[in-house]
Amino acid sequence: MSDSNFRLLKTDAQSKARRGELTTPHGKVQTPAFLPVATQGTVKTLLPDEVRGMGYAMLLSNTYHLYLRPGLPVIERFGGLHRFMGWDGPILTDSGGYQVFSLATLRRITDKGVTFRSHIDGSEHLFTPELAVQFQEIIGADIIMALDECPAPDGGFEKVREAARRTHLWAERCLKAQRRCDQMLYAIVQGGTFPELRRELARFLTALDFPGYAIGGLSLGEPKKEMNAIIKETVALLPPGKPRYLMGVGSPEDLVEGVARGIDLFDCALPTRVARNGSLFTRSGRINIRNAAYRQVEQPVDPKCDCHTCRTFSAAYLHHLFNSRELLAYRLATLHNLTFISRLMAQIRDSIMDGSFNSLKDEFLAGYRTTNEPVRLEQKRKWLREHVSTDDGTGQPYPPAMM
Amino acid sequence: MSDSNFRLLKTDAQSKARRGELTTPHGKVQTPAFLPVATQGTVKTLLPDEVRGMGYAMLLSNTYHLYLRPGLPVIERFGGLHRFMGWDGPILTDSGGYQVFSLATLRRITDKGVTFRSHIDGSEHLFTPELAVQFQEIIGADIIMALDECPAPDGGFEKVREAARRTHLWAERCLKAQRRCDQMLYAIVQGGTFPELRRELARFLTALDFPGYAIGGLSLGEPKKEMNAIIKETVALLPPGKPRYLMGVGSPEDLVEGVARGIDLFDCALPTRVARNGSLFTRSGRINIRNAAYRQVEQPVDPKCDCHTCRTFSAAYLHHLFNSRELLAYRLATLHNLTFISRLMAQIRDSIMDGSFNSLKDEFLAGYRTTNEPVRLEQKRKWLREHVSTDDGTGQPYPPAMM
Repeated sequence: MSDSNFRLLKTDAQSKARRGELTTPHGKVQTPAFLPVATQGTVKTLLPDEVRGMGYAMLLSNTYHLYLRPGLPVIERFGGLHRFMGWDGPILTDSGGYQVFSLATLRRITDKGVTFRSHIDGSEHLFTPELAVQFQEIIGADIIMALDECPAPDGGFEKVREAARRTHLWAERCLKAQRRCDQMLYAIVQGGTFPELRRELARFLTALDFPGYAIGGLSLGEPKKEMNAIIKETVALLPPGKPRYLMGVGSPEDLVEGVARGIDLFDCALPTRVARNGSLFTRSGRINIRNAAYRQVEQPVDPKCDCHTCRTFSAAYLHHLFNSRELLAYRLATLHNLTFISRLMAQIRDSIMDGSFNSLKDEFLAGYRTTNEPVRLEQKRKWLREHVSTDDGTGQPYPPAMM
Repeated sequence: MSDSNFRLLKTDAQSKARRGELTTPHGKVQTPAFLPVATQGTVKTLLPDEVRGMGYAMLLSNTYHLYLRPGLPVIERFGGLHRFMGWDGPILTDSGGYQVFSLATLRRITDKGVTFRSHIDGSEHLFTPELAVQFQEIIGADIIMALDECPAPDGGFEKVREAARRTHLWAERCLKAQRRCDQMLYAIVQGGTFPELRRELARFLTALDFPGYAIGGLSLGEPKKEMNAIIKETVALLPPGKPRYLMGVGSPEDLVEGVARGIDLFDCALPTRVARNGSLFTRSGRINIRNAAYRQVEQPVDPKCDCHTCRTFSAAYLHHLFNSRELLAYRLATLHNLTFISRLMAQIRDSIMDGSFNSLKDEFLAGYRTTNEPVRLEQKRKWLREHVSTDDGTGQPYPPAMM
């Protein structure tokens, strides 16, 4: 597809924020946009109609997961994921790189590709750049991703450089392997927290003229300040006319900060994952509905929220459902959090158009109590330590997919 | 409320089936009717709107569960369960008798009432007939149930007789304890599989002139033939002008057989419980969607079914969701099974009106492959043995609530 699939509608005067429109074979996506995560071909607990009803245009799904379950022959039989999962809007698939490096075990990485064992049944599989493209052509997403090597966040300069070199090599081969002309193949800029590596890889990849560029390898335990600095530096290296996709980032404050630095697309499991844990977004920060304080609260979680949950049920009822481990709890919480994010993205888009993005950003960040940074980092690193797999032959820990 | 809350519209000429209309403070219920089970104030996985949308008029909820969680002060604060759970149609609450005798532990039963320990946290509680009515007045259901003693299915004649005596005594006290005049209090005919005990208790209870009568203590491991015989004999003892409610019975074949014997109301967790296990109703019997045979099936589970699941998704997709333990699986399966039961009940009601019930019954039972009876009984008894609690001081096993 030609570059004209992305059209810039407005560029903010006071920040790097942009308002754009992405055209795909399954419809248009207004950017900046957040993609809910449908890892295994379903946005957990929700029907496609409900996701659409909240205003989402595009979903993310996952090649690694779909390849293992239900398996590509099943998806092929349905002519692709759209029909299989009943979603007729745009889809983006991740190549599986991140999951192979986080979920799977016994990885052997060479320039050819990566051999790994399934996290489900231990069976051995090979992903090469060529296969990653072929698999994604079977799945049939509108945007597909080049296979990348996602280095461990604390792997050190040499490891990250080696991963960047391979990511570059693989991106070239993905481009050559592409057979379908109705899918947009995006490249992923890796390089960890080393600006020189990000710069080098961005230069290589932009020379290959992909229709879009992703920034990978962030939100893996580094401080937010460092992440935002890397985003800013990397975005500056990317062509202004192409969409920029920040992978795996999606707390409300990260979305606002990312847009301010010129990001157009985001995906993240966080809003849906924390929802299932009872953590709900409000304009003043996250609350946990399992807290005993909500036991008798007749008001909804957020009286100003227009999601089905807040329009219909009290905080006390939601508290009761979580307390009783009722399946409806996870559904109602997911609806709420995804409505919150959808509304935030719509407000961001509107504010870029009318020139008020900077004041929206300041107002939002002033009102939104983020998780205390040292506590957040401590929790995230502890979690990474507990969940890492070290049997990849290198002794290097990798962060698990937080799906 | 006066007896006129139940109106018989038609009595079948060739069977005991009746078509009726039950009037409650929250609307009318066309009978024969099946009540989906909202044990903890939610039909598992579904929104109230969805349950209504499938054609259900009335729900069942559970005093024992609501009393323990969220606790009656919470429900009272909301003015009752209707507002708390967002369901403005009729509700029936079970008194908690069955759950106390099945889920709770350390029961001490005297004529005064029953002391038990919560299955959640082991805390000690007392249910008396007076308290059971008071609790149900707080919950505010349209139909409430007298506290009964549900004897173990293999407790022997003396135990069952003693339970029947107490059930009679408690029913009288429930009637006296009633303060609200907008709720219908139904009595429960116990008596196990002993026709003489059923007869004696039915005579006592009908003399007290309740607005409705339930048949309890069935579907607890006895052969279906025996159950149907008991239903037939017990119904014959009940006044024709009052609704008859068969508690805890609800496989498709049991509904058809129950209607044929004059039952007006049913409740059962089976359709929703087996759904979450992947067992789906079709006109030819239950299928299990987790079976590998469905892996590639492009057709819906039942191409003729008009439920949201069958209209939208393939059997292969449902198989994938179950296989991947995705939460949407339980929701889609519940929607399908409850739609199946709702449609069956609507067909039954229509057929009674136009005089074709008997042929509907014969046709349904001829086409519907029920679970093999010896296998079913073996499984049920094994399950009862594994789940019974014997720490009630009597050494007698009680069946657990299958919620």
